[in-house]
Amino acid sequence: MKIVVDAMGGDHAPEVVVAGAVAEARERGTQIILVGQEARVRAELVKHGDVSKLPIEVMHASEVVEMAEHTLAVKAKRDSSLAVGMRLVKEGKADAFASAGNSGAVMAAALFGLGRIPGVERPAIGSIYPAAPAPCLLVDIGANADCKPDYLVQFAIMGHAYARVIFGIDQPTVGIVSNGEEADKGSTLVRETAPLLRASGLNFIGNVEGKDLGRGTATVVVTDGLTGNVIVKLTEGVVSFIAKTLKREFTRGFRNKLALILMVRKRVDWREIGGAPLLGVNGVVVIGHGRSDAKAIVNMIRMAEKSAQQDLVGVIQAELTARRKD
Amino acid sequence: MKIVVDAMGGDHAPEVVVAGAVAEARERGTQIILVGQEARVRAELVKHGDVSKLPIEVMHASEVVEMAEHTLAVKAKRDSSLAVGMRLVKEGKADAFASAGNSGAVMAAALFGLGRIPGVERPAIGSIYPAAPAPCLLVDIGANADCKPDYLVQFAIMGHAYARVIFGIDQPTVGIVSNGEEADKGSTLVRETAPLLRASGLNFIGNVEGKDLGRGTATVVVTDGLTGNVIVKLTEGVVSFIAKTLKREFTRGFRNKLALILMVRKRVDWREIGGAPLLGVNGVVVIGHGRSDAKAIVNMIRMAEKSAQQDLVGVIQAELTARRKD
Repeated sequence: MKIVVDAMGGDHAPEVVVAGAVAEARERGTQIILVGQEARVRAELVKHGDVSKLPIEVMHASEVVEMAEHTLAVKAKRDSSLAVGMRLVKEGKADAFASAGNSGAVMAAALFGLGRIPGVERPAIGSIYPAAPAPCLLVDIGANADCKPDYLVQFAIMGHAYARVIFGIDQPTVGIVSNGEEADKGSTLVRETAPLLRASGLNFIGNVEGKDLGRGTATVVVTDGLTGNVIVKLTEGVVSFIAKTLKREFTRGFRNKLALILMVRKRVDWREIGGAPLLGVNGVVVIGHGRSDAKAIVNMIRMAEKSAQQDLVGVIQAELTARRKD
Repeated sequence: MKIVVDAMGGDHAPEVVVAGAVAEARERGTQIILVGQEARVRAELVKHGDVSKLPIEVMHASEVVEMAEHTLAVKAKRDSSLAVGMRLVKEGKADAFASAGNSGAVMAAALFGLGRIPGVERPAIGSIYPAAPAPCLLVDIGANADCKPDYLVQFAIMGHAYARVIFGIDQPTVGIVSNGEEADKGSTLVRETAPLLRASGLNFIGNVEGKDLGRGTATVVVTDGLTGNVIVKLTEGVVSFIAKTLKREFTRGFRNKLALILMVRKRVDWREIGGAPLLGVNGVVVIGHGRSDAKAIVNMIRMAEKSAQQDLVGVIQAELTARRKD
């Protein structure tokens, strides 16, 4: 397995990306292709001692899609690390692509470079919801602010495939985000999607409320990209708020205050998870957090590697085909 | 000011409702009309010693709308505490209504008994967002799962009126929940509403992301009822998850563990807030949390009283009229 890592993606790229790639290659021998501006990448590599024996290649890409750039920049920059990286996957020279760059840009590059899995209406971004006692995949968290019932059904099928092969859960349950548990609650979108999910053959458990997301009520939870995005960012915001509150209130009195704050953060920490899988594009793509540090990069690479090893794309394709209403 | 309190509303009614009403009447002399099944209400009152001198009246209502009942029950039960209470407000015999009952039922009873403020398209439920450093009102949190741009603009105007008279903020800022700060982010609803808000004369600051809700980015934040409901319940869920995690991890080692958990809960505690204002109906209505204890009931009554004292309905009416495009 060879994993393409976007050396230029992320708020602290290429520094932390290279550091994460080196750490992962050293620790587990993972084969990595670092794509980016070669001189800058090599300047980072030399900071990590002797890397000549590590299974790391560097592939030059002259252009960079900046974090704040519009996704249109992706199309214009044909020699960006995103474009070059996707081509490596498309041409079979690598098995997965991972980037902590702008998620919209990564998605656009994936669509442009890899295309969709046949039959997929809209690719979606999944997110492993951190504040839950059991693995929980939320789809979509931002790729599709406006959704149709058919999209959500496909999100559920793709999420179901992910939960089976990556979480290793045989019979993942599926829920849909709504403003109440009762079947008559929800927007028109939710009320039109629920019967389709019920008829899909998936293990659909119905509506999932905001308070239930952190209870592991369903393995796969589908929602439109606006609501999903709000859920993920709000969770981060609340955790951050509580950590700050603890810090302020316990300036004195708790000797282990710092340990406590770190613990709160760690329990609900995207760094531990590594990234968000991009589901529905014709190749393994993982999007890391823009604020990734080296540890988060390591976990992002591992998520990409595992997805490739488990043939996530093939499994999604097979589930979509099996569940297609003809 | 006389406040009608629904003695039968809430998971622990009438016990905690009566306890809260007695506490409030004792402490601040607030005039309260307890509406509900008289025998049950009086049976609770006698538990609190001599209440004969307190400014509490009891008004009999033979029927009860149960927490789990469909809102249609509201129409059928013409002698419920909800129906009787709303009539007292409608007829000018009381100044505000407060209930910790089923929010859908309270809303239905308010629409049926009080009607809308002239010009209001859809009443909405506001919620004071607890995990923020500054007062923040989120509208809607569940009354309208499907929204149109015009509804959201009215939510903003009503929330603006609330923030002025209840928060006492002269120039409240207004934001809209979206999946990104940039103006091109958001669902069709968000992208169609934003220009209307920008043209409304309100102090519109643009899109608010999930992570910004807890930062006091905007005083009034509008969203559809599904997303708003998820935001409120998710925040509760995350706080509960963190409190449980702290409890489990620090069974030993922290002597002040309990104080710590209580502190986390208190910082993000709906009990301190008391209730959610129902905005747009032609009378002051506050909806308390179903799980309210006596302290939450006290705060719910105070919110209702303050809203009546500040003539919230009149102020909303005036702002709607002033901002109407003719």
